[in-house]
Amino acid sequence: MGKAKYLQIVDFIKERISNGEWTIGSLIPSQRELARIFRVNRSTVITALDELMAEGLIEAKAGSGTMVTNNTWTLMGNDFSPNWNENIAFGIHKASMATVQKINELESNSDFIQLSKGELSPDIFPLESMKKVVKKVSGQITPFGYEEPKGNLKLRQAISDYLQKRGIDASPASILVVSGALQGLQLISLGLLQRRTTVFLEKPSYLNSLSIFQSAGMELKGVQLDEEGLDFNRISLSNEKGRSVLYTNPTFHNPTGKLMTESRRMELIEFCRENQLPIIEDDVYRDLWIDSSPPSPLKSMDRYGNVLYIGSLSKTLSPGLRIGWLLGPESVISRLADLKMQSDYGSSTLSQYVAAEWLASGLYEEHLENVRKQLKIRRQTVLETLNKYLKNYADWETPKGGFFIWVKMKPEHKTARLFEKAYAQGILLNPSKIYENSADQAIRISYANAPLEKLKEGIIQLSIILKGESVKALGDSPPVD
Amino acid sequence: MGKAKYLQIVDFIKERISNGEWTIGSLIPSQRELARIFRVNRSTVITALDELMAEGLIEAKAGSGTMVTNNTWTLMGNDFSPNWNENIAFGIHKASMATVQKINELESNSDFIQLSKGELSPDIFPLESMKKVVKKVSGQITPFGYEEPKGNLKLRQAISDYLQKRGIDASPASILVVSGALQGLQLISLGLLQRRTTVFLEKPSYLNSLSIFQSAGMELKGVQLDEEGLDFNRISLSNEKGRSVLYTNPTFHNPTGKLMTESRRMELIEFCRENQLPIIEDDVYRDLWIDSSPPSPLKSMDRYGNVLYIGSLSKTLSPGLRIGWLLGPESVISRLADLKMQSDYGSSTLSQYVAAEWLASGLYEEHLENVRKQLKIRRQTVLETLNKYLKNYADWETPKGGFFIWVKMKPEHKTARLFEKAYAQGILLNPSKIYENSADQAIRISYANAPLEKLKEGIIQLSIILKGESVKALGDSPPVD
Repeated sequence: MGKAKYLQIVDFIKERISNGEWTIGSLIPSQRELARIFRVNRSTVITALDELMAEGLIEAKAGSGTMVTNNTWTLMGNDFSPNWNENIAFGIHKASMATVQKINELESNSDFIQLSKGELSPDIFPLESMKKVVKKVSGQITPFGYEEPKGNLKLRQAISDYLQKRGIDASPASILVVSGALQGLQLISLGLLQRRTTVFLEKPSYLNSLSIFQSAGMELKGVQLDEEGLDFNRISLSNEKGRSVLYTNPTFHNPTGKLMTESRRMELIEFCRENQLPIIEDDVYRDLWIDSSPPSPLKSMDRYGNVLYIGSLSKTLSPGLRIGWLLGPESVISRLADLKMQSDYGSSTLSQYVAAEWLASGLYEEHLENVRKQLKIRRQTVLETLNKYLKNYADWETPKGGFFIWVKMKPEHKTARLFEKAYAQGILLNPSKIYENSADQAIRISYANAPLEKLKEGIIQLSIILKGESVKALGDSPPVD
Repeated sequence: MGKAKYLQIVDFIKERISNGEWTIGSLIPSQRELARIFRVNRSTVITALDELMAEGLIEAKAGSGTMVTNNTWTLMGNDFSPNWNENIAFGIHKASMATVQKINELESNSDFIQLSKGELSPDIFPLESMKKVVKKVSGQITPFGYEEPKGNLKLRQAISDYLQKRGIDASPASILVVSGALQGLQLISLGLLQRRTTVFLEKPSYLNSLSIFQSAGMELKGVQLDEEGLDFNRISLSNEKGRSVLYTNPTFHNPTGKLMTESRRMELIEFCRENQLPIIEDDVYRDLWIDSSPPSPLKSMDRYGNVLYIGSLSKTLSPGLRIGWLLGPESVISRLADLKMQSDYGSSTLSQYVAAEWLASGLYEEHLENVRKQLKIRRQTVLETLNKYLKNYADWETPKGGFFIWVKMKPEHKTARLFEKAYAQGILLNPSKIYENSADQAIRISYANAPLEKLKEGIIQLSIILKGESVKALGDSPPVD
């Protein structure tokens, strides 16, 4: 004798749910249809559905049928429905905002004009040099096992030499190789900061588009920028002394492109020292200056081990290498190295070899010269196009380096709406709301990624959208005399 | 006028502390010495020290001077002193056990005989093939940007084909490329499990040597193994239904080397389905069978998306590539892919290309044949040596694959003591206490890593230590008639 009929139906439905054919949130076939498929009475179908409801996998929706609500994993309290609300907590870690997820996904879609992507254009990628370096490394390969907790020593030595040229004295023992700046931030958030630590940061900030700090129970507090950079006078530490940290991206700030002045840097270091406010300096855009070399890093002015410094090859050479670095007092770095071992047992050996070769051979500095030249042309083109097409709708400043122009829209043009309309026309841009909650009206335009012609085309399309809105707004208003 | 003298002393000391010259826990120079160095009165020195004490950086120790107690980062509540207690929580994430940290550190020390290391010997590493593959890949390089959230499609396709041969049907969309199995576990712990989830796992288990699950607030509950593998009859789910998960390593289990039988696998899948207990199957040793191919993975028997399956190239090909995979229901995998993007923006593109080439070209399967041959020789040598030298002190079983022999010591030989004595003689081994708290008396010996002669030498040394203990024990006892 086989399995009871109703259990066959239960199994059939469970299998459809688990293999993803019937996704969470979708309706399953009607009772009548199921009865027909299995050649049973409706009462048998109802018994099966009752069983599935008891297990929490489906739910009856008044008037609309029976909906899939869970699978075994979601039953543990997770929610994976595509329409999830961004305020719901998932597991311990929060999922990123819907807009951010959408952008992440579409950034690899070549049908879109990428005004969004904070990544060098493929035509700036040093393809021939990379091939040569990888080929050279292929000849040097030794059996690769796990590396030392802090990372390959040759690479750490090369990073130490590189930092020396940027004014920072750091021995290899105080350097941790990480798989990109983001991993550095994650290690800090998991390994150093306590729950309910206050994280002061620029407003707007790239960090708001991520949820690593929020997921770890930190509170983010935005600090306004003025013309010199982060305005630390607005930091009120009354209740947060010893329970707070400052995250800053002083050089070609993402998303605004701002560059903190040298005097502000000196004042900030002093303020933080006096107030025992540790600093996380995210300096991944430093090498992308266009007009002149930026002021020295905060870290170079730090005599008290108060600054953790983050750098990376992702913005300047190749995100695909996944190589960045974190430096700070040796005791802190050792702690984070242990945590990294627990997270992923270290970064790819192959990537570490390749990165070391780029830095140590001098090829990296050569490559940077070309990057700066290309970025200068791109910035020029985009500024000209903006001047020609968007100046009635927005304001902006000229960034001195990095990838981004922060385009502040006039109040009548809601950026969320602009994002949606541009998206519908195949243009991807980053609206300000992903960088701050109560957002100024702005969009971040990257001049680094899309082909020049596409950059122009995208901006012209934006102007057409904005013009349509203005005309409509005029049309809606009573005629003017 | 310069800075007040006492402030110069404060600065001087802060600088020494932060740059690591004066480590936490060490004594600073005496008041008299400081007075001499700075040519000031002792009262000025005392003013400076008072300031530093008020900031929490130093502390007076009665009778022994003044000790460094903090730096800015530790002031936030962290503790990095080298003698930290393993029970103290650091940040959100726990540091790994002192013994585990010690082993991690010494595993790259070539002066030690590595009876510990769960990694293939460098002489099994396919050096020439790896050089060829990397060279081939160097010719195929395209500008590498960030990959898709789930990982490079060509690699996911190659993994899908590989899994097909192991009895698992998985489309590339249900596969997430991770930087090794450990990262897979971390993503699951952060992204899927709620705080206070119960994690059932084999007792002993490799997972106890890590703190990823504990750090995330999970409770680990060990389940005994019998001759067929994990004995699920001992799992009591009364209070934990819907709040628990099973972690298992059924194939050549780390650390015991056990292989779960096929019938136990079928029963376990059924038990977990009935009890809605999701399974994490860690299957990283599968390809390392020596005598015959192991029973199919639990995942191949899973029709309800109840199993998350983890595999890796680290054990079989190269840990340095940092390439593993995680598969499960698509909704779960998408969620974890988003989390991975937030952790490190994906694994190294170069490593992904290289891994894809190994799998797709058939070179990987060829390499495995050699690995099995070498492991067979190594297992044979170690078993013979154990039989010759340790059989009076311990018992063990013959593993059918993987890297490890679980050597159960007779009660008079405490493994913690054996670890310390062996360590003093330059031999590294893993004592059972890192795999379970109330440990059986056992040590894990890896036959995979050290040169054959060293393996023999290490075991002979152990026998000498054990013999010494026995003699001593006899000497301590009253003489027997």
